[in-house]
Amino acid sequence: MEDHHGTKDIPGYDLGSPTIAKSPISLDELSDLKASTLFTDEDVVYLRLSYDVLKDQAEELVTMWRGIIALHPHLAEYSQDERTGEPDKEYGEKVGKRFEQWVLDTARAEYDQDWLNYQYEIGLRHHRAKKNKTDGAHTAAHIRGRDLIAFSAAIVSPMRPYLEKGGHSAEVVNRMQEAWWKSMILQVTLWSQPYMKDGDF
Amino acid sequence: MEDHHGTKDIPGYDLGSPTIAKSPISLDELSDLKASTLFTDEDVVYLRLSYDVLKDQAEELVTMWRGIIALHPHLAEYSQDERTGEPDKEYGEKVGKRFEQWVLDTARAEYDQDWLNYQYEIGLRHHRAKKNKTDGAHTAAHIRGRDLIAFSAAIVSPMRPYLEKGGHSAEVVNRMQEAWWKSMILQVTLWSQPYMKDGDF
Repeated sequence: MEDHHGTKDIPGYDLGSPTIAKSPISLDELSDLKASTLFTDEDVVYLRLSYDVLKDQAEELVTMWRGIIALHPHLAEYSQDERTGEPDKEYGEKVGKRFEQWVLDTARAEYDQDWLNYQYEIGLRHHRAKKNKTDGAHTAAHIRGRDLIAFSAAIVSPMRPYLEKGGHSAEVVNRMQEAWWKSMILQVTLWSQPYMKDGDF
Repeated sequence: MEDHHGTKDIPGYDLGSPTIAKSPISLDELSDLKASTLFTDEDVVYLRLSYDVLKDQAEELVTMWRGIIALHPHLAEYSQDERTGEPDKEYGEKVGKRFEQWVLDTARAEYDQDWLNYQYEIGLRHHRAKKNKTDGAHTAAHIRGRDLIAFSAAIVSPMRPYLEKGGHSAEVVNRMQEAWWKSMILQVTLWSQPYMKDGDF
């Protein structure tokens, strides 16, 4: 397995791995989908600018997002061990490392075939098709499609103070966050595929 | 049928109509879903502030969004008459009036049971379940789920210059647009329900 940017020590991080399936959609279809979100090369520029701002804040961001999840029982249940009703710490740690890497991958914005395949895998890992399988965990068997899509707002909306730490002008911060909104919606769209009826996606 | 804010002349605009189905999700579930997007009463305040800014710009906004659609064949096909390959003008006009009213309804932020029911109806009208039925049209039979979700970014991202016309500070404009992002994602989540497999939503 190719090592993507020193990530070989992250359990279950399979971007570029031959063990995951090819995305059911093509790069041409991804290109149309980007157009549907108005995602352009300029967004890539601003995402990459955000990389430098966020690269040392990924752990803090994940801690913040998990704080939101912990505050809401209907979200917290997704990472609780169903046998004990307690948070599954081992699962949480592995998922957390991948979540941090996701911040970096989103900001790096190398949205190629490997990345596209891994988006499909991420969707499957939220859906009953593959949830828990990667980590051999016993948490809730499925993340509701509604929460998968809706939580994308809880990801991007609170990012502003973190993006501001780079010392860029308010206009540049706006533009970075806009690129994050678009990328987030692009990704959650891809993740929703396993949830949809045949032919509906 | 109750007349919602002088909308009785908009063909097929059925917010509050007894002819549409009750939403499959409850107001309690909507409350959880709002939490998943971090949507709060403060967002309602900023959406209502945006109402005054946008109320005379709804037609311009819809024209702008349709310009984006027209530029992309994979989106333009959704409103073309399949018998002629040309845009269906009558369909376009009716949908356009409802689209303008949607701007006002989103900004008014009265997200009650009537509103919730109508979100389900809006989802059905994008899906093969009910597309074309309201207007007796012959356009594409189904809007792909991917474009339904992805286009939410194309709705909110270009709104900034319109929101700026109210003369509010950049901070207030940011906050209004953030409320729009959250509401948009909340709504597109609700609209996705008819697309999802039983039990997955």
